[in-house]
Amino acid sequence: MITEVATIRVKPGVQATFEAAVGKAEAVFRRAPGCLGLVLTRCLEDPERYDLLIRWQTLEDHTVGFRGSPLFAEWRALVSGHFAEPPVVKHFANVFAPVEF
Amino acid sequence: MITEVATIRVKPGVQATFEAAVGKAEAVFRRAPGCLGLVLTRCLEDPERYDLLIRWQTLEDHTVGFRGSPLFAEWRALVSGHFAEPPVVKHFANVFAPVEF
Repeated sequence: MITEVATIRVKPGVQATFEAAVGKAEAVFRRAPGCLGLVLTRCLEDPERYDLLIRWQTLEDHTVGFRGSPLFAEWRALVSGHFAEPPVVKHFANVFAPVEF
Repeated sequence: MITEVATIRVKPGVQATFEAAVGKAEAVFRRAPGCLGLVLTRCLEDPERYDLLIRWQTLEDHTVGFRGSPLFAEWRALVSGHFAEPPVVKHFANVFAPVEF
């Protein structure tokens, strides 16, 4: 299991429509093989920045499977009009299991 | 509830000791009022980069409570020797509840 972190900067003022678009995009990711879930987060220090965290069974489920499928175009069609610049995407693996207090 | 994301770059080669130090630091965060949990993640694209995600009841539980307490010095004593540079810290709020597929 890995977590994709897409750092997305939106144009000023489009936050509400961007967030609604990501809400619609949930149905796209739901159909993506190996996609385990997602959460959209907004940066408190920067009102135009979002980090979209998407969990994948494997890295290749994202970088090969999703990016090489029509689902990627569906995702981009929903959201890319809101982008101020191309998103920066990185992937992370948990070093330890998450701890809850 | 907010998520602190501390992006930490470590000196080359110290990953194992840094990870062990964060494991010990769990006990520090466990004692921090308002700290709900944490997970250490490593960046697949960059072997010296970690993102440490820490959940707090409120932003101030971190920025005022933790940073103003002796626990912060305990945390830094465990880990700062591994830093290549000062960590970059941002805070995020969920726009929607996380979705699981």
